Amino acid sequence: MTPLYPPFTIGVDLGGTNTVLAIVDSVGHIVAIDSFPTATPDIGTWADILAHKIKDMIRTSDLDGHIKGIGIGAPCANAVTGSIEAATDLPWPSPIPLANMVQARLQLPTVVTNDANAAAIGEMTYGAAAGMKNFIVLTLGTGVGAGVVCDGHLLSGTRGFAGELGHVTFPFAADRPCGCGRSGCLQTVASAKGILTTARHLLSVSSEPSSLRGIPEEKLTAKDICEAAHAGDSLAKEIYEYTGHCLGKAAAEFAALTDPEAIIIFGGVANAGDLLLPPMRDAFSKNALHLYRDRVRFLKSGLEGANAAVLGAASLPMMKR
Amino acid sequence: MTPLYPPFTIGVDLGGTNTVLAIVDSVGHIVAIDSFPTATPDIGTWADILAHKIKDMIRTSDLDGHIKGIGIGAPCANAVTGSIEAATDLPWPSPIPLANMVQARLQLPTVVTNDANAAAIGEMTYGAAAGMKNFIVLTLGTGVGAGVVCDGHLLSGTRGFAGELGHVTFPFAADRPCGCGRSGCLQTVASAKGILTTARHLLSVSSEPSSLRGIPEEKLTAKDICEAAHAGDSLAKEIYEYTGHCLGKAAAEFAALTDPEAIIIFGGVANAGDLLLPPMRDAFSKNALHLYRDRVRFLKSGLEGANAAVLGAASLPMMKR
Repeated sequence: MTPLYPPFTIGVDLGGTNTVLAIVDSVGHIVAIDSFPTATPDIGTWADILAHKIKDMIRTSDLDGHIKGIGIGAPCANAVTGSIEAATDLPWPSPIPLANMVQARLQLPTVVTNDANAAAIGEMTYGAAAGMKNFIVLTLGTGVGAGVVCDGHLLSGTRGFAGELGHVTFPFAADRPCGCGRSGCLQTVASAKGILTTARHLLSVSSEPSSLRGIPEEKLTAKDICEAAHAGDSLAKEIYEYTGHCLGKAAAEFAALTDPEAIIIFGGVANAGDLLLPPMRDAFSKNALHLYRDRVRFLKSGLEGANAAVLGAASLPMMKR
Repeated sequence: MTPLYPPFTIGVDLGGTNTVLAIVDSVGHIVAIDSFPTATPDIGTWADILAHKIKDMIRTSDLDGHIKGIGIGAPCANAVTGSIEAATDLPWPSPIPLANMVQARLQLPTVVTNDANAAAIGEMTYGAAAGMKNFIVLTLGTGVGAGVVCDGHLLSGTRGFAGELGHVTFPFAADRPCGCGRSGCLQTVASAKGILTTARHLLSVSSEPSSLRGIPEEKLTAKDICEAAHAGDSLAKEIYEYTGHCLGKAAAEFAALTDPEAIIIFGGVANAGDLLLPPMRDAFSKNALHLYRDRVRFLKSGLEGANAAVLGAASLPMMKR
């Protein structure tokens, strides 16, 4: 049996579909894990189910009195207020005073933050950024988010909105409208949806044969494209190459903000790391200021894929204040 | 007589032409100030002169034993190493272990940082950012630099190169080559030299009458343009309006990094604050993500013009670690 290292924390990944909860030790071993569907009539019911499951899990693991705290990663969660603000992917109205609701039910210190910040602390605590004090985690999924750690500190900002790097605009995306009402945001290219936009464009302007042409347009997913690329489909490879190239150009600008030693990609789209990282490195090195060129490592998340989000959440109570 | 508030610090502004030194109290009153020409045969001689002048000044002010430390602002100075690295505007070869050299001569804790970071700490300690924890100071002078404070902490980065916002690239400058070897850097537009580039362009493409046409091209300075604008010259006003517009667009991207409550302009070019700030605010509000729109204040430096740099330096020993 794997030896476990106290203290223990509880991570909660509040996703649009499922809520995953886990007890994790101080080096990232999952002691126990459970989940339930997020869709409940109201947030109070959700919090009751969560509290019940956490209590059960602590009891079953014989860790009563050994839990340092609870960390919750949730869309649009704000670490400054402890609330979920204006989340569009959740079944309940915002704002939701999430930290208070969970803390009141379990009498354990509870911190919340958005998915990207949880990912950053997770990478620093158990993952690819272990031992680093300056790095950026880009979360590539439905949208693009970022957790920025500079001088050992996760940037929060006046109202907790630091690190919205998915909404920095770039010329390479100038003709892509974003859900935020503007155009050119990085997430219009580097999210799963952005990859589909690139795919549709390349499929229409090129006549190159591709296995992707056999999939109805409305059913095509970023995962299909990733699989096709891995199987050698050259048009699919080109889609990821373009995405990586854009990410590298973006990283060249981001480097000037915090002089990071690494940029880490995380999330669904980042699972195609071997397709994205080489063009990212290449575009970075061609575009970055000499001070940063050859000084930044590009890495894939070091958290185990399926449990990355809940591990990120579990790392939050371990964060130094 | 103005009452003075201990502790006292010494600020040193190491400029290309002059070195300015001052004793400053904890709220930014200058107790004594002196200067000498920077050009000395070697850095050792410079440090000897500085040490001699500082000792004199402390003795004359009767503050022996009351000095908390020395802060030095210098081009290309790195707070992480305490050295000047690859400065092109100084008469001596780099690197220069400046903090150690001064500390050894005066037995007082000595910190160095670049001009932009000194400006940021100065604004936080005695100036426009008093009481703020999240702001960006853009130093607009020969080049463009930035000092970024997030969550009360001045961003430093892996090797002290955080906040090089003058070298973030933008489409509005895509056709402007930068001294760094790339094109599109913010400083190709928002520095004194950038303003001259804009002036030359507008003077050549427009036939509008302007008092600037009476100044030989090689003698024209940003200050001339500022004076002409204040005197009502509409082409000169257009030059600053364009510059402010570009700064506002840049600020819209920078806001996504640290969620600042204010962006402060500092330095020679920023003295034209009343010409730059309205178009900055306007372009920011048209370009920023909704989260930041109407949430960021645009301010002019709160440090007294001529002494702003030495006050910034004097604030360094006051910085919380």
